[in-house]
Amino acid sequence: MPTIKDIIAARKYVYRHLRPTPLYNYSTLSDLVGTSTWIKHENHQPVGAFKVRGGLNLAANLTKKERNNGLYTASTGNHGQSIAYAARAYGIKSVIAVPEKANPGKVAAMRGLGAKVLFHGADFDEAREWIKQIAKDRGGKFVGPTDEPLICGVGTYALEILNDLPSVDTIIVPVGAGSGVCGTGIVAKAINKDIEIIAVQSAQAPAMKLSWDSGTMVEAEMKTIAEGLATRVPFENTQRIMRKYVDNFMLVDDEDIKSAIYVLLEHTHNLVEEAAAAPLAASLQIKERLKNKNVVLVVSGGNLSIQNLKDLLSGIG
Amino acid sequence: MPTIKDIIAARKYVYRHLRPTPLYNYSTLSDLVGTSTWIKHENHQPVGAFKVRGGLNLAANLTKKERNNGLYTASTGNHGQSIAYAARAYGIKSVIAVPEKANPGKVAAMRGLGAKVLFHGADFDEAREWIKQIAKDRGGKFVGPTDEPLICGVGTYALEILNDLPSVDTIIVPVGAGSGVCGTGIVAKAINKDIEIIAVQSAQAPAMKLSWDSGTMVEAEMKTIAEGLATRVPFENTQRIMRKYVDNFMLVDDEDIKSAIYVLLEHTHNLVEEAAAAPLAASLQIKERLKNKNVVLVVSGGNLSIQNLKDLLSGIG
Repeated sequence: MPTIKDIIAARKYVYRHLRPTPLYNYSTLSDLVGTSTWIKHENHQPVGAFKVRGGLNLAANLTKKERNNGLYTASTGNHGQSIAYAARAYGIKSVIAVPEKANPGKVAAMRGLGAKVLFHGADFDEAREWIKQIAKDRGGKFVGPTDEPLICGVGTYALEILNDLPSVDTIIVPVGAGSGVCGTGIVAKAINKDIEIIAVQSAQAPAMKLSWDSGTMVEAEMKTIAEGLATRVPFENTQRIMRKYVDNFMLVDDEDIKSAIYVLLEHTHNLVEEAAAAPLAASLQIKERLKNKNVVLVVSGGNLSIQNLKDLLSGIG
Repeated sequence: MPTIKDIIAARKYVYRHLRPTPLYNYSTLSDLVGTSTWIKHENHQPVGAFKVRGGLNLAANLTKKERNNGLYTASTGNHGQSIAYAARAYGIKSVIAVPEKANPGKVAAMRGLGAKVLFHGADFDEAREWIKQIAKDRGGKFVGPTDEPLICGVGTYALEILNDLPSVDTIIVPVGAGSGVCGTGIVAKAINKDIEIIAVQSAQAPAMKLSWDSGTMVEAEMKTIAEGLATRVPFENTQRIMRKYVDNFMLVDDEDIKSAIYVLLEHTHNLVEEAAAAPLAASLQIKERLKNKNVVLVVSGGNLSIQNLKDLLSGIG
């Protein structure tokens, strides 16, 4: 299990290519949540999502043979962009399998970063099993979405939160495969065990929440619009870390996620993707409990498709 | 006239509160413009616009008496947010006059930052003359939108551009009152006089362009939707600097600005305000001439109102 030392070690490789992202307090948002509310702007990253930190740490730590043989992975979008970005930075080939109905904007972005994109299967899990076999056949390195170097890389955003707001009381983090919340929990609890870590997933894709609750691996129906939260099969290594470091695990409805996207557009003028709006939706559910706390919402990414944005704006307000 | 030395001196006060903003290359955007195209993300600033740099430099350099008596200014929104943000950072009172039909989101943001907001007049120029008199009556400091400390503060983004991309060939900057393009020109030409500085304004509000062309102060009709470009009466001090440092001054139609907002949403997932999309619209007009150049588009701010976003999305695509 990674420790804060591993995450501190990743800083060197992350900041070779990236700058810290802002942590901003918005007064209008604080009024709405009823307490001092901060946004960690991972949507400001070059590929529009926090995962790029993990990709860069992973690529920096490959063996020479691994670099030569290329990286293989599956993605609904952001993880793939992260791997493509990191591979390009190190001159490594990347091959990414995406579900047949993948977000076209994210596919175009991966290709723009030089990745070879292959379509396969109905969802992330199908694409993953397929590309894993291909990697094996070709002798390439398969990268799973929760590999340890990824967790350590993404954990650097939590170091930034603690650096910018040492008095943080609660951090709310969206969960897909769980790398983000694991990195956050490891860092926050090592520095101050009283910081509360809240994980959030969509009620329309609760596999990680049900697994965390029960202490076993539970598959669940996956019907969420939030591709960053769309996990059908839980991940064992992140579950293990989450059981140690996560204090609460919440579910929010997709409809509340849509409203939260709207609120963030209106009050912060940031376009955020569905997963990234889940922490705000969660905070609005537990306003009473958050009073007088310094709350950080991790806005994990900004890659909302323009079609989803249109649908959302025509439906609300 | 300020020099690059004055802008370098402003760094100390700007970075006391802000971090450098990213300069990102987007492959899909580069394909569209037909050359390597970079976005300077001033929309990532805490108040969503580049002007906050200027406000912070101004506030840091006030006399004790000026701090005690407060800051008075007029704004269509972003300049006011900048002054409010800086005033709050230094514990100074700020009073901001806005036109009667000001963007409600920007007004709420100014109030959220602790400013006293007063509505007066049909446009920026009317609000300004009115608040100037009030400042005089009360012994407060009136801050004009092109005061030298503001130009020096905002010029720090140009230092960041040159630092991140020393091989930049062309920088395209939107012009309202002109502080941004002046800071950019002063920095870029001091470092490399071959860097081309292109100013851009809306064809529906060409006062600054007509003044620059003619070498005299020309008022012009102002009907643009882009509040950041909505100048009816030109500013003499920025005109003087622009005549020295700006190589070309372009006009783009409001309709092209709207399309550019859409393109930036789709390809960069950043919400940008009208003025901030003008450089992309301009670059698409002169694609042939930009070939093989490293082009930086200054995305000056992100404060698009949700109503304008809705109108835009229902009209396009």
